[in-house]
Amino acid sequence: MNKIYVVGIGPGEYEQMTLRAIHALENCDTIVGYTVYVDLVKEHFAGKEFLTTPMRKEVDRCILAFEEAKKGKTVAMICSGDAGVYGMSGLMLELGENYPEVQVEVIPGVTAATGGAAVLGAPLIHDFCLISLSDLLTPWEKIEKRLLLASEADFAICLYNPSSKKRHDYLKKACDLMMQHKSQETVCGIVKNIGREGETYQILTLKELRDTEVDMFTTVFIGNSQTQRIGNAMVTPRGYRHD
Amino acid sequence: MNKIYVVGIGPGEYEQMTLRAIHALENCDTIVGYTVYVDLVKEHFAGKEFLTTPMRKEVDRCILAFEEAKKGKTVAMICSGDAGVYGMSGLMLELGENYPEVQVEVIPGVTAATGGAAVLGAPLIHDFCLISLSDLLTPWEKIEKRLLLASEADFAICLYNPSSKKRHDYLKKACDLMMQHKSQETVCGIVKNIGREGETYQILTLKELRDTEVDMFTTVFIGNSQTQRIGNAMVTPRGYRHD
Repeated sequence: MNKIYVVGIGPGEYEQMTLRAIHALENCDTIVGYTVYVDLVKEHFAGKEFLTTPMRKEVDRCILAFEEAKKGKTVAMICSGDAGVYGMSGLMLELGENYPEVQVEVIPGVTAATGGAAVLGAPLIHDFCLISLSDLLTPWEKIEKRLLLASEADFAICLYNPSSKKRHDYLKKACDLMMQHKSQETVCGIVKNIGREGETYQILTLKELRDTEVDMFTTVFIGNSQTQRIGNAMVTPRGYRHD
Repeated sequence: MNKIYVVGIGPGEYEQMTLRAIHALENCDTIVGYTVYVDLVKEHFAGKEFLTTPMRKEVDRCILAFEEAKKGKTVAMICSGDAGVYGMSGLMLELGENYPEVQVEVIPGVTAATGGAAVLGAPLIHDFCLISLSDLLTPWEKIEKRLLLASEADFAICLYNPSSKKRHDYLKKACDLMMQHKSQETVCGIVKNIGREGETYQILTLKELRDTEVDMFTTVFIGNSQTQRIGNAMVTPRGYRHD
């Protein structure tokens, strides 16, 4: 059986992997991934073959994995967070049509939204949206529309890819759009390096977030109208009525 | 130190817990939870004290946990999925204000959205929303508004609590609302008993979903305009442009 596991390794530290993910990596011959993620797991899976490709070479990475599996190797394709949230599982299933002899199994993990939420407290207890600010594959107009409608619907919002070298003002633009429907005082949070060395977080208002610089290792959380700051935690209640 | 871990145990099977969650349960004296979830973990943590409360007694369950921690015990409050997604971490942090001597640590897990997505393929690869159809604590009008605006924004949508004895027609109502903005042919998926005995899934159109009965152990996925059926998988592409 030619088999590929597409594995979400969680935020980064070994402790936050699921047992299922650990067992898949233990049972495979070859671990394929983006260089940074392979470096995160390498020490825990000695004796495996490691193959890496740079960022944005996702199609090449998938083909590499399928070609190894075709040779009869059991392959694990690793992704940070969850393989199914801005991860590789979709592309693997799309390209898998060309490799009918290879079975693809997706193994979920803790994504940055829930990993970061746990660091901040409980910002995503109730209905929420995930929106990526990367316009590499999505027109910015589509992202704008989602930010506006999600804010109008009073969702808590978690932003992935809030910044990059080319997109240094996107978070500011996103905050301005959200402030068309959300109060400037909405409780927000940012978490940097979730589950990795140098993990830090900050709770601030939407207005303050607008003028905050974040990097690509940061996940951003915007509360709904009920979200509160309780001590050092960002907490969204379970609903709008009280018991 | 009086300590409570609020632990997301993932979909249900031991294999899908994170190492961090397993270590928290191993290191605690007392495990508190809803009866069904305690039964899921009991066999793996022999020798612990187990305390349970019935469904909907969430406040009582939290107070029970804090009172045990006050006595000096290390307590784990367990939730299915992720503790921060329709889970107990928010209420624990709210009630924690009354117990300043007790430290609360939230440990994330695999939530039904990403656990179920992995079963279906890759429905949540791109921007998505989580919406609960339970109107126990949220006015139905608010839920309607979210369904409409999320559909208008072309989000993939994952529905939690799609049905209960009292709310048997809510999924039908939700589908009718979503069809105001989404095509009847939108690719959808349902997963029952994610990561538990009797796990099953089905891929169908939004129109077919409208006339499908689901139970409270089912999680529902509605694709965006780009979502496809590939073989037996539900796959949302990474964006709207192609490489």
